[in-house]
Amino acid sequence: MQQSLSEEKVFKDPVHKYVYVQDEVIWNLINTKEFQRLRRIRQLGATYLTFHGAEHSRFSHSLGVYEITRKIISQFERNAYPDWPAEERQVSLCAALLHDLGHGPFSHSIEQIFDTHHEDWTCRILLEDTEVNQILRAVSADFPQRVASIICKTYEKPIVVNLISSQMDADRMDYLLRDAYFTGVNYGTFDLERILRLLRPHQGKIVVKESGMHAVEDYLMSRYQMYWQVYFHPVTRSSEIILRQIFRRAKELYKSGYQFEFMIAPFGRLFDGSLTVDDYLKLDEALAQTVFTQWMAERDELLAGLCRRFLNRRLYKYITMEEPDEALWSSIRKCFAELGLHPDYHLEIDFPFDLPYDVYRPDAKEGRERPPIVLLDAFDQLAEISDKSDIIRSITGLHQGRYHLYYPEEELRHKAEYMPKHIRELFGL
Amino acid sequence: MQQSLSEEKVFKDPVHKYVYVQDEVIWNLINTKEFQRLRRIRQLGATYLTFHGAEHSRFSHSLGVYEITRKIISQFERNAYPDWPAEERQVSLCAALLHDLGHGPFSHSIEQIFDTHHEDWTCRILLEDTEVNQILRAVSADFPQRVASIICKTYEKPIVVNLISSQMDADRMDYLLRDAYFTGVNYGTFDLERILRLLRPHQGKIVVKESGMHAVEDYLMSRYQMYWQVYFHPVTRSSEIILRQIFRRAKELYKSGYQFEFMIAPFGRLFDGSLTVDDYLKLDEALAQTVFTQWMAERDELLAGLCRRFLNRRLYKYITMEEPDEALWSSIRKCFAELGLHPDYHLEIDFPFDLPYDVYRPDAKEGRERPPIVLLDAFDQLAEISDKSDIIRSITGLHQGRYHLYYPEEELRHKAEYMPKHIRELFGL
Amino acid sequence: MQQSLSEEKVFKDPVHKYVYVQDEVIWNLINTKEFQRLRRIRQLGATYLTFHGAEHSRFSHSLGVYEITRKIISQFERNAYPDWPAEERQVSLCAALLHDLGHGPFSHSIEQIFDTHHEDWTCRILLEDTEVNQILRAVSADFPQRVASIICKTYEKPIVVNLISSQMDADRMDYLLRDAYFTGVNYGTFDLERILRLLRPHQGKIVVKESGMHAVEDYLMSRYQMYWQVYFHPVTRSSEIILRQIFRRAKELYKSGYQFEFMIAPFGRLFDGSLTVDDYLKLDEALAQTVFTQWMAERDELLAGLCRRFLNRRLYKYITMEEPDEALWSSIRKCFAELGLHPDYHLEIDFPFDLPYDVYRPDAKEGRERPPIVLLDAFDQLAEISDKSDIIRSITGLHQGRYHLYYPEEELRHKAEYMPKHIRELFGL
Amino acid sequence: MQQSLSEEKVFKDPVHKYVYVQDEVIWNLINTKEFQRLRRIRQLGATYLTFHGAEHSRFSHSLGVYEITRKIISQFERNAYPDWPAEERQVSLCAALLHDLGHGPFSHSIEQIFDTHHEDWTCRILLEDTEVNQILRAVSADFPQRVASIICKTYEKPIVVNLISSQMDADRMDYLLRDAYFTGVNYGTFDLERILRLLRPHQGKIVVKESGMHAVEDYLMSRYQMYWQVYFHPVTRSSEIILRQIFRRAKELYKSGYQFEFMIAPFGRLFDGSLTVDDYLKLDEALAQTVFTQWMAERDELLAGLCRRFLNRRLYKYITMEEPDEALWSSIRKCFAELGLHPDYHLEIDFPFDLPYDVYRPDAKEGRERPPIVLLDAFDQLAEISDKSDIIRSITGLHQGRYHLYYPEEELRHKAEYMPKHIRELFGL
Repeated sequence: MQQSLSEEKVFKDPVHKYVYVQDEVIWNLINTKEFQRLRRIRQLGATYLTFHGAEHSRFSHSLGVYEITRKIISQFERNAYPDWPAEERQVSLCAALLHDLGHGPFSHSIEQIFDTHHEDWTCRILLEDTEVNQILRAVSADFPQRVASIICKTYEKPIVVNLISSQMDADRMDYLLRDAYFTGVNYGTFDLERILRLLRPHQGKIVVKESGMHAVEDYLMSRYQMYWQVYFHPVTRSSEIILRQIFRRAKELYKSGYQFEFMIAPFGRLFDGSLTVDDYLKLDEALAQTVFTQWMAERDELLAGLCRRFLNRRLYKYITMEEPDEALWSSIRKCFAELGLHPDYHLEIDFPFDLPYDVYRPDAKEGRERPPIVLLDAFDQLAEISDKSDIIRSITGLHQGRYHLYYPEEELRHKAEYMPKHIRELFGL
Repeated sequence: MQQSLSEEKVFKDPVHKYVYVQDEVIWNLINTKEFQRLRRIRQLGATYLTFHGAEHSRFSHSLGVYEITRKIISQFERNAYPDWPAEERQVSLCAALLHDLGHGPFSHSIEQIFDTHHEDWTCRILLEDTEVNQILRAVSADFPQRVASIICKTYEKPIVVNLISSQMDADRMDYLLRDAYFTGVNYGTFDLERILRLLRPHQGKIVVKESGMHAVEDYLMSRYQMYWQVYFHPVTRSSEIILRQIFRRAKELYKSGYQFEFMIAPFGRLFDGSLTVDDYLKLDEALAQTVFTQWMAERDELLAGLCRRFLNRRLYKYITMEEPDEALWSSIRKCFAELGLHPDYHLEIDFPFDLPYDVYRPDAKEGRERPPIVLLDAFDQLAEISDKSDIIRSITGLHQGRYHLYYPEEELRHKAEYMPKHIRELFGL
Repeated sequence: MQQSLSEEKVFKDPVHKYVYVQDEVIWNLINTKEFQRLRRIRQLGATYLTFHGAEHSRFSHSLGVYEITRKIISQFERNAYPDWPAEERQVSLCAALLHDLGHGPFSHSIEQIFDTHHEDWTCRILLEDTEVNQILRAVSADFPQRVASIICKTYEKPIVVNLISSQMDADRMDYLLRDAYFTGVNYGTFDLERILRLLRPHQGKIVVKESGMHAVEDYLMSRYQMYWQVYFHPVTRSSEIILRQIFRRAKELYKSGYQFEFMIAPFGRLFDGSLTVDDYLKLDEALAQTVFTQWMAERDELLAGLCRRFLNRRLYKYITMEEPDEALWSSIRKCFAELGLHPDYHLEIDFPFDLPYDVYRPDAKEGRERPPIVLLDAFDQLAEISDKSDIIRSITGLHQGRYHLYYPEEELRHKAEYMPKHIRELFGL
Repeated sequence: MQQSLSEEKVFKDPVHKYVYVQDEVIWNLINTKEFQRLRRIRQLGATYLTFHGAEHSRFSHSLGVYEITRKIISQFERNAYPDWPAEERQVSLCAALLHDLGHGPFSHSIEQIFDTHHEDWTCRILLEDTEVNQILRAVSADFPQRVASIICKTYEKPIVVNLISSQMDADRMDYLLRDAYFTGVNYGTFDLERILRLLRPHQGKIVVKESGMHAVEDYLMSRYQMYWQVYFHPVTRSSEIILRQIFRRAKELYKSGYQFEFMIAPFGRLFDGSLTVDDYLKLDEALAQTVFTQWMAERDELLAGLCRRFLNRRLYKYITMEEPDEALWSSIRKCFAELGLHPDYHLEIDFPFDLPYDVYRPDAKEGRERPPIVLLDAFDQLAEISDKSDIIRSITGLHQGRYHLYYPEEELRHKAEYMPKHIRELFGL
């Protein structure tokens, strides 16, 4: 059932040096077409327009999450910790490897517009008729469902869910290191080897030995820096706004019966919400970019212009501001409309925020909690990390963030003389 | 004419830490749609199927070549070397930035099939009606032509050509470091800072101070290792063979009048050789992958199968062999034909080779020489490096390489019992 | 006066890759015997007993501080900022290079016992009859005094003092990076290149452009981590306690007329406070270790034992505790005395603390303020960093630290049965 | 007998990230005074005068060799290779840790003068009355002798000797990486993880899987570069010459009955060849430097001058030349004598050489062969690496090297006018 490969397979990986595969089922999963598709989905969406090195795919991240999980479990096994359920190794590794399988092209932008969730697609790919499902089913009839329930966080043993989904899980540890490596920033580095060595299975969850407290602090600071320096970078946000607007406009046109010069199979079904798993698997970033390239020649100037902006990197500029009150906001919209701009497209307000760490953090995206980080002291006592670490306590709950207003600068500057003075000054024109 | 930006612009780069832009013309060139298109062409083609980190684009490499060139010229200017023609700064930086502008999707595979050359396309993009041309023309009427002639190596001052095209030029120095970084191997690292510090303009060419000899040896060894470990990796070669076969088959079908289920604008014109610059600029790897995805459903099973192989990474396996004689080769082809396999597609022999260093190396690809590396000693005497370095002399002219025979393993194994014994054994079946 | 070397000199440096020397006076200063002596003083005192890699000397750190200062000034000159007094280049570089010249062996431990200050010794070496003084005087008669007053922070132009002494100066930036490199921890890394690029001379001080705020946050976090993970590591503190006790005991014996089996010139004069500059320059860590080696055979068992502890790394163990009240403290001391241990030597309480950042930080050691970090926004407005950065504000003034009680574990365990129960339990015996 | 620690101990190491200790005997050996003494012996002798970062000690190298050996054996055990004698684990780890125990201060220079060998001292420390011996004897009566015979290469199982002494052993792999790290050069880096993974125990020796051939090539090239760039650096050689002359002169004076102003216990016995193990263990680099400092004031001007040269880094300069014939050599010596210089001290010729790789390399220093590197192919066939690798074959036996003549430049320049013209020109005066 849990067959080993006759010879260990190895992937060269810039973050972990090597990724080791010893189980046949893992090897087979990597070779499915659904998993190979992740090579065509970038890990950081449109971030490469800000950090040109960030062209890495979800394929490499998925291998990395698998590798970290494998290392954690190996450590647990090597030390024979009684609180680790040894029989969960295989299912944990599969869940780690496959947790991002349902990501689509530029998911963060698409999901908002089409009200889909990549976790749901992950589960459908695991459970419907796919190569991945076939390999999982060969392990046992309920195996696909077990893997899916770990990813959906409903698995019966929370310790397994913890491994790939908590405030310091294999997923986050890999993406912080990986995104730092590929963007080239040095904010995301922390001492992975030390943290892995100090994790312990303990009464149904994973905790950290207290001697690792400073390493965890360092991890949380890295996380904080990565959010503000990379993930929330205003240029990246601008690219994401353009992307979202492309999809919003195209859907609007489609619904209104507009005849596209160019349309291709899964895109239509994306717009009318009738995507099958098969369609979904054809949706990758190569396709999205190809469609955008074609749409640069659409008759609808709004859509064509947005596509040109994205592909040729002519992004919206932004101004930083205090939270605008209703009156100011309507006067800006009104002004844009009067200038012949489109207030629903040429104007977007953005307020990114993230908590560096929160005791019980209601995870906005998933609507589910991410368990806090718990320390285990020399006397086997547990404590939530912000009880022990002054620096973490002092930043817990701290949220930072400013309002950014995005808009097409050239168009606006062109028309500056027709704008009311207070709005013109707001935009520095 | 040579306008500085009011404020230096900076790109975060994982290889050089930062790329600095001080000239307005460079900034404007980076923002053209033709240059932004390089984000959609991978630097190492299909290598990401072997080294999953190698997903970086020609965009980042082009910035890197620019940055190295900028550093070399800054050093020359800082020391006011009389042999450096100071007026060549701007044209050199433009040529460095734009030297790869004409690369297409998976160029190495496409070029062989369609008999095109990316250098020619680079020149057409520089000289025809493009955004890049417009910016260059604003400098002076003959500026586009000057940039082009540096890239074509016909420029009147060889020292400028040397900068971006010699056996140790900004192009090679960047790609060795960059490809090593993104694949994650540590073969490609050498002491760039030391080499840059020891370069000298000298009587119309660029030479290296003799005290840098060991650093140059190290660079040549890195180069040797990168060729054999990365660029010529048999799995990469297998992917390239599949790619080449896809284009070969599609062209064959097109010429024969086959009705494609899916065809899209520039692809048709690629097949009948009528591409314009506009068409060419639409050809990127997103488009190629989209077309392959669609072709997985073509009626022509050969084409469909090759596309599936590429996208789902079901590559040909290979055996290593001595150079096969004519008799063996025909018996293998005959056997393949008898088994119902296609000898022109299911069988390909490959013999990659590279010289670690050659005194006068006729550069196969370009049919033009790459000048040798010349050392300058304390008494201002010049010497070709292999005269001074025992280790380089001992490997000069050394070429290594073995024949690899690529084939579809599953199909063959399936039919092993019908193969002649000596061929079956050759394939280890 | 400000003579350039005919050819730039270069030192290979693991932290900055290379250190560049262009001025003859710098080159000559490095070659003085007083500066070469810094090779025999470790940068981190006894820390190598905790982190075995930390064997680097003040020599390499001094070169590093010089190099960072050189880079900052080069940037100021390249951009021709009017607020930078260009004539201060040479004196600034000399002060950067020489700022630690007066450090003695294990200074932190020695200074407390002998009430000396390395800054005072630095000034004496600069101003009295030394090779360094001779070279500085050759620049101009008042040059030695100018260099000294920068190091003493009394120089007339605070911007120059700022360079090497503020909350983010060349000194701190080098030691954080260097100590992280040699210990092997990855806490001390931050984006030096970015910070250097965003420093600006502004109205008599050095400020940071606001766009560098996150990089400064990262620097402060690195600093915080280095303090707690490296500089205040309990094992290091234990080594320092042993060192201090060796010097304390030896001085005590010397004052009491004890006849040492082994005594060597500058050590006697150290004890009676009659050190000359010449003597002081002979005091290095080689001498200290040699003396300790000889003292392992002294008749005074307390001194001999402390020396053995230090050289053979048999350090005191420690327990962590709340601040002990007077009653507990005397009962422990009393217990130690009754057990035949020496309460003044076998018992030491330690409470290390550091502020991650403070708005106006009265620098404990020097009794003088270190100026805060000031940001310069796009409208040329200044703001203290904790006004802008939420995370820095939230940790400002935060000080952490616990009491540690150090003691000889073997001796105590041996006598555990004779200890009062509450004290025995306190020590976990 | 082979007791595990209740909890794994960990050392932070810049090269291997962490060094893991699981066995009690290893932990106890590290804590002996003889092993702690290695902290006071630099790994690279006087090299820190050339590369200021090279201040690391044999202590950290010894831990590194232990760690690499531990990793190799773990891999063998994890895969349960039948050709690995599992019972040899403990003795191998001890030999790896202790192999350099007998190194003295600046051993390379001392050994030549006093005709001692650090290997002999290592064995004496293992076998005579020391803390190390006591711990080893506790394992079993013959255990000290077994460890010693591995280090002396006379152990009955060559595979164990291979681990720490062959052309690619744990010793060399650690020192190349470590010396590269601390000097800051990037020549010494190779893919340790890959090599370790591909080592195999095979019929009494350790071989490398053929797929690791390029990684081995890279290792050999690193080795070659490190020899020429670091170990044989002419400035380092100059420091070593000065060191050797100090010891030579002091011995000469001692033998002639000269009354030293300063002499200290083990030094006298070093000169008359009566050192005991106890004396030897007191000989460390702190002591050597202290003695040199005192000797700067000796009446013998030759000795005093050499000590000043070493401590203040006033080294001999050198000229590069072809092998001088007898006539030239005597005329130079004669000229030096006539100028009042001392031909036996002020003139030294040096010809460093190393083979990048040799099939059967008679190891000059030890007078014993280091076994060649053997590859194991997929069909279990063995081949010496130079049979398979073109590049290694082409450099095998290649030896490079030039004659350097070292001399005191200031003295010579001073007297240049009195020198015969051909000699003056030879020295460029």
